Amino acid sequence: MKQYIFSFFLFAATVVILQAQAPSGHPHTHGGRKIEFPDIPGYRTLKCDFHMHTVFSDGNVWPTIRVEEALKDGLDAIAMTEHLEYQPHKEDIPHPDRNRAFEIASKFAQSQDIIIIRGSEITRSMPPGHNNAVFLKDANKLLVEDPIDAFREAKKQGAFVFWNHPMWTAQAKDGIARLTDMHLQLIEEGLLDGIEVINESTYSQEALQIALDKGLTIMSTSDVHGLVDWDFNLEKGGHRPVTLVFGTEKTEEGIKEGLENRRTVGWFNNVLVGEEAWLMPLLQASISVEKAAYDGNTQVAVVTLHNQSDAVFQLENLSPYSFHRHADFLTLGAHETLELEVKTLEVKDSFELKFKVFNAYTAPEEHPELVIPVVIGK
Amino acid sequence: MKQYIFSFFLFAATVVILQAQAPSGHPHTHGGRKIEFPDIPGYRTLKCDFHMHTVFSDGNVWPTIRVEEALKDGLDAIAMTEHLEYQPHKEDIPHPDRNRAFEIASKFAQSQDIIIIRGSEITRSMPPGHNNAVFLKDANKLLVEDPIDAFREAKKQGAFVFWNHPMWTAQAKDGIARLTDMHLQLIEEGLLDGIEVINESTYSQEALQIALDKGLTIMSTSDVHGLVDWDFNLEKGGHRPVTLVFGTEKTEEGIKEGLENRRTVGWFNNVLVGEEAWLMPLLQASISVEKAAYDGNTQVAVVTLHNQSDAVFQLENLSPYSFHRHADFLTLGAHETLELEVKTLEVKDSFELKFKVFNAYTAPEEHPELVIPVVIGK
Amino acid sequence: MKQYIFSFFLFAATVVILQAQAPSGHPHTHGGRKIEFPDIPGYRTLKCDFHMHTVFSDGNVWPTIRVEEALKDGLDAIAMTEHLEYQPHKEDIPHPDRNRAFEIASKFAQSQDIIIIRGSEITRSMPPGHNNAVFLKDANKLLVEDPIDAFREAKKQGAFVFWNHPMWTAQAKDGIARLTDMHLQLIEEGLLDGIEVINESTYSQEALQIALDKGLTIMSTSDVHGLVDWDFNLEKGGHRPVTLVFGTEKTEEGIKEGLENRRTVGWFNNVLVGEEAWLMPLLQASISVEKAAYDGNTQVAVVTLHNQSDAVFQLENLSPYSFHRHADFLTLGAHETLELEVKTLEVKDSFELKFKVFNAYTAPEEHPELVIPVVIGK
Amino acid sequence: MKQYIFSFFLFAATVVILQAQAPSGHPHTHGGRKIEFPDIPGYRTLKCDFHMHTVFSDGNVWPTIRVEEALKDGLDAIAMTEHLEYQPHKEDIPHPDRNRAFEIASKFAQSQDIIIIRGSEITRSMPPGHNNAVFLKDANKLLVEDPIDAFREAKKQGAFVFWNHPMWTAQAKDGIARLTDMHLQLIEEGLLDGIEVINESTYSQEALQIALDKGLTIMSTSDVHGLVDWDFNLEKGGHRPVTLVFGTEKTEEGIKEGLENRRTVGWFNNVLVGEEAWLMPLLQASISVEKAAYDGNTQVAVVTLHNQSDAVFQLENLSPYSFHRHADFLTLGAHETLELEVKTLEVKDSFELKFKVFNAYTAPEEHPELVIPVVIGK
Repeated sequence: MKQYIFSFFLFAATVVILQAQAPSGHPHTHGGRKIEFPDIPGYRTLKCDFHMHTVFSDGNVWPTIRVEEALKDGLDAIAMTEHLEYQPHKEDIPHPDRNRAFEIASKFAQSQDIIIIRGSEITRSMPPGHNNAVFLKDANKLLVEDPIDAFREAKKQGAFVFWNHPMWTAQAKDGIARLTDMHLQLIEEGLLDGIEVINESTYSQEALQIALDKGLTIMSTSDVHGLVDWDFNLEKGGHRPVTLVFGTEKTEEGIKEGLENRRTVGWFNNVLVGEEAWLMPLLQASISVEKAAYDGNTQVAVVTLHNQSDAVFQLENLSPYSFHRHADFLTLGAHETLELEVKTLEVKDSFELKFKVFNAYTAPEEHPELVIPVVIGK
Repeated sequence: MKQYIFSFFLFAATVVILQAQAPSGHPHTHGGRKIEFPDIPGYRTLKCDFHMHTVFSDGNVWPTIRVEEALKDGLDAIAMTEHLEYQPHKEDIPHPDRNRAFEIASKFAQSQDIIIIRGSEITRSMPPGHNNAVFLKDANKLLVEDPIDAFREAKKQGAFVFWNHPMWTAQAKDGIARLTDMHLQLIEEGLLDGIEVINESTYSQEALQIALDKGLTIMSTSDVHGLVDWDFNLEKGGHRPVTLVFGTEKTEEGIKEGLENRRTVGWFNNVLVGEEAWLMPLLQASISVEKAAYDGNTQVAVVTLHNQSDAVFQLENLSPYSFHRHADFLTLGAHETLELEVKTLEVKDSFELKFKVFNAYTAPEEHPELVIPVVIGK
Repeated sequence: MKQYIFSFFLFAATVVILQAQAPSGHPHTHGGRKIEFPDIPGYRTLKCDFHMHTVFSDGNVWPTIRVEEALKDGLDAIAMTEHLEYQPHKEDIPHPDRNRAFEIASKFAQSQDIIIIRGSEITRSMPPGHNNAVFLKDANKLLVEDPIDAFREAKKQGAFVFWNHPMWTAQAKDGIARLTDMHLQLIEEGLLDGIEVINESTYSQEALQIALDKGLTIMSTSDVHGLVDWDFNLEKGGHRPVTLVFGTEKTEEGIKEGLENRRTVGWFNNVLVGEEAWLMPLLQASISVEKAAYDGNTQVAVVTLHNQSDAVFQLENLSPYSFHRHADFLTLGAHETLELEVKTLEVKDSFELKFKVFNAYTAPEEHPELVIPVVIGK
Repeated sequence: MKQYIFSFFLFAATVVILQAQAPSGHPHTHGGRKIEFPDIPGYRTLKCDFHMHTVFSDGNVWPTIRVEEALKDGLDAIAMTEHLEYQPHKEDIPHPDRNRAFEIASKFAQSQDIIIIRGSEITRSMPPGHNNAVFLKDANKLLVEDPIDAFREAKKQGAFVFWNHPMWTAQAKDGIARLTDMHLQLIEEGLLDGIEVINESTYSQEALQIALDKGLTIMSTSDVHGLVDWDFNLEKGGHRPVTLVFGTEKTEEGIKEGLENRRTVGWFNNVLVGEEAWLMPLLQASISVEKAAYDGNTQVAVVTLHNQSDAVFQLENLSPYSFHRHADFLTLGAHETLELEVKTLEVKDSFELKFKVFNAYTAPEEHPELVIPVVIGK
């Protein structure tokens, strides 16, 4: 028990430093603080946060605040994931039921258009560290001694389970996510489904590599303990990390099915991280051609691009044409429209723009290449 | 009549006081709309705009406005460059003296800390198109029939001469800068010293290649005809294009010597363009390490970077280390401070950060690589 | 030479397109920097500026800039009013025709929805000081020795004439507007129709009293010489002074008829100044009740007020009821909606709100009282 | 008991409506969201909030969040005032000790420059309604049946006691604060010291009159249950209500002594409310003359006023002089500097400016008059 207290003090210390260093934000506006990304063909783009705490473990707010924050952020779903074994407010909140935060949040959200998911954080030293089980039926039944038994119980309940902050310096002093034998066993047994590549203010490309290597779902969560407004720099245009889940419908089942089939993209600090299969359609849906025409009697085509997402795209031109009013590297702001003058050398009926998208990753150090077909006069 | 002059001076004085008490509040920089870049070792970084128009050719303002704009923008020098041959306001302003705009601006600027340079735009069809001669002694003498004679006269007066907007679609329908035989001849004879890679809202990587191939000075100018406030989106944090000249002193001679020795970097729409020899020291002077220490007993070094320039740097990590709170691609805002947590794997006394700087160019599609030495405990 | 003209038109066209795609983002209003006030019953509220200068007298811009500024400010009409007798740019602009600024502006504005009015500033020492004649037929004919003859010529041409900046400290060292015998004579002879109560950054309650005493039209003008953007603090939400003219139609004749019948309100630095007959309907049109209902089973009525004007209203409650969430003095922001909870003591079907409007004047130190009828359930 | 639950549901409903109607803010800046007012001669101006809730009664945050909010707001002191009798979270937080919120907040604040005051809200139906006792020794001892006994116990412990939200529509359907016989008795027995004139988003001029009539201390509190950031519109420049206490020192004793001697001013939604004795020195300390000189050889004195407070002052000129660049009614922004050109008719060595301050109240509908002495050349 002492061990937990120790690690958590470390965690708390890190959080305090974090707030002080608060990097400036990308002013994503459009719908204020609401997080906005377009749907993709065949799926809804559901904005979800699967990791957070309240006074029912070591968080600092009543569960209803988590619902209000999520509504303000325009989320489709949140999971309540109190620590099972770590209960620092126990003296004041001795309630033995580990489902309480979910129940309170769930009741509060009844008439709102948001899904509250029952979850729990299996909170152990390494291995297996901390792991979230979401879509549970009864969190209390996970309170067992052997950690692997807790995973088994979660799976028995039909849960989706993911490894939290594998880069956490309290459990990995070099900040490098590394699979242990126990994790390999969990994966083999089908007990571990996902891994946080993004947790709160941290990003791990090593965790991303693990997700790709092992077929784990890429997760991005806020793990918020304090206030979203303060911890994610909202007043400067920041946003909480979320997992974009591509679901056939906005239901608990739809989200779960999306997670199980690894249809996710992480959204963190203006970075999008996902498997190519899901990142590409999201990029394609985000940037559209509004207009395209040649400028007077020149061979310069004016192409109007529109970004219907919160991402500030950092793009490098990979097409054979240079631009007339931009260098090869350019920025397309959130929800902005940009006129690009393309020097196509001769007048064409159609052509392709091609960009490397630097604020997106399909693998460590790997940026997707987006092709945008342009039809003149369209 | 004397009476009027007297009263009007009083009135003018009031207006000047008024303007002084109305401080600007533009968002993008440190000093409001003032353009700010640090000096580099051995040189001052002089912010200059060598191309602009007033009512004395086809511009829309009296020359004094150009001086006021430049003071608001924090410039060190501007050149008055009216079209010699193109005089659309001739009916109203028949004055035959092509030095008038310079004289008026120069007199107005007398008590101000800004250098006004006498220039002229030799305005011909292609070839040789439009070319600016700056540091002239008498613009009128360039009014000769043969364009090459105009260049010769400029040189006779000791001028620095550069080719304007070689990408202008009115003279190159495909927007591609291309040297003609006449330009080659001018270069060979030592009559052409520079080339605009940036003009107003246009950027030409083909012009940049010509500059590098032929040893021409890289120029970046506003070519403003209307108002700087309107044409360069100042209310949204934009800025006019300028040529940063590295001079040994802030004098007309210092600027000219800098231009002649090709010590320039163009600054346009958040892009820096220059020869490696001058871009690198500017980048090095712009980004400094404020602090570096390991976080607790971890192997994660917290490095505090500070950007003392107007550029919003778009950086890709080329070092062997990944970051704990950032992806490999990151943005360092203008005049901002950023804490970077570097996963060095083991505790080190010193190490190097290395970044590709995507908003800077040393050649077409060529970004400089910036090495930042970090000493722990510094 | 034709060739140049051709190419330059192309260039100019590009610049115009560019400006169009750079929307402004000023904070104080609804439509950015556009000045917006609602129409009143029976009349259109026309936003006009009847006093300004260009390089054709002692201003610093070409006349086209005045048109562009006015379009950006959403004005319905401007008058070009160069000094007749004061021509400091004469050396460079010797043109003898005092109609030139009007002609250039007028031609430039042809395809735009703005009315350009031919005017002139009769510029004399005191008395009669400076006076504007607008709706002239030929400004040159006013260039006569005797000032009264200039007024007579203006009237002969059908002009509307007003006294400029009677508070100007260059002509009245104490800044107090005072009628001279010559002004009295001009008024008696029907040669003077209006008086500037507001000029540029100055406001004169003594001039307002003169207007009321003598039946002169209340005028409010920018008298801009430099740039509207700089002189009126636009980046901080400021605005140029304008005269709101209540006209039966948006035509030159409609404006003139409105001026002649003294249907004006001056708008300056968030202050509205006008005769009660025209200020009251403007206030009534500006503030409307959107909704009114009692809060639950209380005797507190929630009244939703909406301000459809640029004015930030400073209101003091004169009704017999106090408010539940506001003190008696309150601010209703430009284009904002405010819920006022009114403690009516008993539940009523209807009642009246009554406010003193402190940022409006019907006479020196005299604020209008606005009655707003409220019908519950409306 | 049922009765309490009923009233609190009503209260909660009101709060929800409130957030929706959120009036726009006065952007008070300078120190961000920190509340800033200058000290007055002989006293420190201490910014205090004496009424707030956490999860330990019906609030939604852990007590530590209240401390963090207060630090962000720059407060000198806060009182933790949970409802004694109303414990809707009892099922989860059954702790019988009514001092817990104070203890947790107090421990968390140990190393911070903020004073945490032990308080409690005696929560009864009318009369006497809700009343706060602050500077308690043990809140538990107030848990007695007879309300008057609770006041007596508070006083026995040396507490300062004030009546909360006497305008609350759940206890006064017309929103009018009215003394009951029980309140009169409490005052006579010396058991009631203050009254909230401002509570959360409500203001009561009837409560102000009671304070003045009965010699009660004027109180202004947030009564926050949710998040300060959300409930007081911080992102639009709003601020939480606070009581400014003029204390000889920043200690618990200093604050208590200030309250007991009625040295307070309420600060709410850009309104200052206080007894003349304390409001006047605060106004005098807030507005200072930075510079005063005649403009050239005129009789117009330029007086530079500086506002070193968060208040946006709404001022009406009561001096015999009119202004050259302002109407009689003017606004002096928070922490702003304003040049006022005063038409003194003759050149004077010194004179007085006199303003009615409309955003300040010394009694219902009573605004203070501020005299500002001006010495030329100072």
